Amino acid sequence: MEYFFFFEKKKGSGTRFYYCKGLHIMKTPVIVVNVKAYEGGTGRNCLRIAKVMEEVSEEIGASMVIAVQTADIRMVAENVKIPVFAQHMDAINYGSHTGWILPESIKEAGAHGVLLNHSEHPMKIKEIAEGVERARESRMETIICTNNIEVTGAAAALSPDFVAIEPPELIGGDTSVTSAEPRIVRDAVKAVKEINPATKVLCGAGVKNGEDVKKAIELGSVGVLLASGVMKVKDKEKILREMASAIEEK
Amino acid sequence: MEYFFFFEKKKGSGTRFYYCKGLHIMKTPVIVVNVKAYEGGTGRNCLRIAKVMEEVSEEIGASMVIAVQTADIRMVAENVKIPVFAQHMDAINYGSHTGWILPESIKEAGAHGVLLNHSEHPMKIKEIAEGVERARESRMETIICTNNIEVTGAAAALSPDFVAIEPPELIGGDTSVTSAEPRIVRDAVKAVKEINPATKVLCGAGVKNGEDVKKAIELGSVGVLLASGVMKVKDKEKILREMASAIEEK
Amino acid sequence: MEYFFFFEKKKGSGTRFYYCKGLHIMKTPVIVVNVKAYEGGTGRNCLRIAKVMEEVSEEIGASMVIAVQTADIRMVAENVKIPVFAQHMDAINYGSHTGWILPESIKEAGAHGVLLNHSEHPMKIKEIAEGVERARESRMETIICTNNIEVTGAAAALSPDFVAIEPPELIGGDTSVTSAEPRIVRDAVKAVKEINPATKVLCGAGVKNGEDVKKAIELGSVGVLLASGVMKVKDKEKILREMASAIEEK
Amino acid sequence: MEYFFFFEKKKGSGTRFYYCKGLHIMKTPVIVVNVKAYEGGTGRNCLRIAKVMEEVSEEIGASMVIAVQTADIRMVAENVKIPVFAQHMDAINYGSHTGWILPESIKEAGAHGVLLNHSEHPMKIKEIAEGVERARESRMETIICTNNIEVTGAAAALSPDFVAIEPPELIGGDTSVTSAEPRIVRDAVKAVKEINPATKVLCGAGVKNGEDVKKAIELGSVGVLLASGVMKVKDKEKILREMASAIEEK
Repeated sequence: MEYFFFFEKKKGSGTRFYYCKGLHIMKTPVIVVNVKAYEGGTGRNCLRIAKVMEEVSEEIGASMVIAVQTADIRMVAENVKIPVFAQHMDAINYGSHTGWILPESIKEAGAHGVLLNHSEHPMKIKEIAEGVERARESRMETIICTNNIEVTGAAAALSPDFVAIEPPELIGGDTSVTSAEPRIVRDAVKAVKEINPATKVLCGAGVKNGEDVKKAIELGSVGVLLASGVMKVKDKEKILREMASAIEEK
Repeated sequence: MEYFFFFEKKKGSGTRFYYCKGLHIMKTPVIVVNVKAYEGGTGRNCLRIAKVMEEVSEEIGASMVIAVQTADIRMVAENVKIPVFAQHMDAINYGSHTGWILPESIKEAGAHGVLLNHSEHPMKIKEIAEGVERARESRMETIICTNNIEVTGAAAALSPDFVAIEPPELIGGDTSVTSAEPRIVRDAVKAVKEINPATKVLCGAGVKNGEDVKKAIELGSVGVLLASGVMKVKDKEKILREMASAIEEK
Repeated sequence: MEYFFFFEKKKGSGTRFYYCKGLHIMKTPVIVVNVKAYEGGTGRNCLRIAKVMEEVSEEIGASMVIAVQTADIRMVAENVKIPVFAQHMDAINYGSHTGWILPESIKEAGAHGVLLNHSEHPMKIKEIAEGVERARESRMETIICTNNIEVTGAAAALSPDFVAIEPPELIGGDTSVTSAEPRIVRDAVKAVKEINPATKVLCGAGVKNGEDVKKAIELGSVGVLLASGVMKVKDKEKILREMASAIEEK
Repeated sequence: MEYFFFFEKKKGSGTRFYYCKGLHIMKTPVIVVNVKAYEGGTGRNCLRIAKVMEEVSEEIGASMVIAVQTADIRMVAENVKIPVFAQHMDAINYGSHTGWILPESIKEAGAHGVLLNHSEHPMKIKEIAEGVERARESRMETIICTNNIEVTGAAAALSPDFVAIEPPELIGGDTSVTSAEPRIVRDAVKAVKEINPATKVLCGAGVKNGEDVKKAIELGSVGVLLASGVMKVKDKEKILREMASAIEEK
């Protein structure tokens, strides 16, 4: 297991991340928005949200990241300054792999990182391990999504940059993980710390408002990964501002 | 089963396909190049090959199509006039499908069609059927890849625009399907004709030179789907010219 | 494509099937009961149902088949005379395939046939094709499950002994396929006949009573494949008798 | 995470395991033989090997376990006294899961435990976690197979009874893991101890003779999981005797 040492770098308006051994590191605390395959998160609609996020991020001074569909990575990455993540990739190498998502292809398209093992795209343990390694080789960050404390601990042992715990009973629902199950976040943070202190925890389900974001940070996570909390809200800019304010730099 | 009637349209230099009910149809005979996840077929390298294909296609007057990685669809489609195909898509609808490839996302990125069930990305029969339907809804053409006569017949029953038969023993090898196994292509053409005359056959493995392309057409296919025959050749332009000449418009 | 010629054989009380080229053939019309992984269909409970089916089958003179879990094949096959089917198998050969279901292993355990591509265990088109071939080599019959007319036609092209069409909207529900959608069964029978007349059709969803069984036969199918219609009914013997009477030999 | 306390029990000739909370525990040191889907490990051939293992085990007083195909569990478990393991199971519950392997079905058939995530049947991390839990509910032991140190650590975090590390480069080969890569076993033992001291390590590839077995124990593992080392050897009884002698009770 290899640990990274983090050297903070004076950032300009456009670079919203640190560097370590040349690896982009998301600045934390962070709000990661996964646009999934929602109609509102596809193609030009996706770019529109990314633009709003960029604006809010710069104005308020809060770190924001958008996770987009593979076909949209290049367009979004070319047009906004916030980091763009892929929603998935396959742990393949250059070669005869028709139709799979090559780490190098999304990196060249502009991805700064990648979600692995999202509950909607569960992965084999071996492929997650290889995915973390392949992402590191391509200098992309990794967020492994997990569904409970045990899997969170296991994921941490694979040395990703982040794990995002998403208890399935809270996904897409109205209950906030931080109010309903504060213990889950706290226990996940503790389990990860014991197994791999270099991995950070994101709170990944049931985040609906600025209060939830604040609570998530207090519980020891370094930010939130959310989808419906933004994507299914009519006034996206307003909710993004509210959430960003919860982590703004003083 | 719905059959399309094909109305030929006077084409300008840039439009290399017919229209039917608004659907782009690859002009045949055709040479489809699958760049797979080869290093030489990723990102800028992919665009470079697409440019060469476009040039050869226009000069010689031969229909050519390139099948690219998801992350490269938009860049290639925006920069060349030959049709761009996706190497795979998932038969999903708008919604919570993190990390999967949405038909509408690749369509908006510029894809004219999609390969389904490539031997390196085999699909469930149900998903192929849904994929053909979803592609049609998104006005994209489909090529179902198959590995033998039985599966070719089955694929034809799912009403794709094309099937591409690739006997596994010939993939990536030095043997030409048309010389080694001419009967396979002829039988596939016959089987498809009986089951679904609206589906056309591509010859999908062991195509190495202009002679193979000519032979494939004589055997009743409407073109070739190839990868290593171009991608592993040093002088790609030369081999593309040779193959294009074999199907040039007189 | 190879067609079998069927020679009827005088059957004793225990042999409820014909022979063709040494292959056991389910006697039709037939009632196939899939016990799934229901608690009532596991282990001794499964054997109990098989015994009831055997008794009803012999008394009324109606062909009945039970599809059981892999771990229960041997026990059931050793204790009843009705044919036992596996619910799935993998199209593998002898070798290094830890944890997969080898055709030869279920054959030796006593399976007469196998379901392929059940909606709860969808298979890749290539694997279905290989599964049909491997089953034939092991002298087992095949039932490919399908979800609509197109997939039914495609399945027929793979030359199974039977296809069982199960429109997903009717699975497990209270609506009978024969009353709600008689056209589906009739069209499936027609599509299969055109593509592969040696394959027979089973009606596979929404069969609740003797009337449904009778109707299914009238529509051109050779029997029914059902699960909840028997497994979720309290008095299993009664419903089995009612259904058996609908196909009894006069 | 729940830790079990192990109470040793005076064993008779037939019971080759301890009990803890009613759970059968393989007596260690142990030799686990995976018969895969080898012809020599299918049906009656499998039973024959199990009989030899039982005899050697009783004579020499060495703990031995056989991992068999699903269709063979019941026959083998009914005819030998050594513990029988399944080669795989699916983390499903009773219900509509046609064709999958239900924990309760293999338990009732006689399985004492189950391999999970064998390199030939890789599993999603979520399913491994659920598999461990479902096995525990059904009072079966679990061996999670892993391919390197990182995945071994991750597997330990899921609290199986055992992990078996099988570096892919050594599977089926002639090199012994203990001589070629002793560090791997030692590091795996250390990683597991740190993350979950209740989980034990098996050495899972490249075990060819008694010397390898002895070495594996010295390196901190509690036994070996092997396949070709026995299955591809002509005189199986001889090699089993040699390996058993290496762990015999003094």
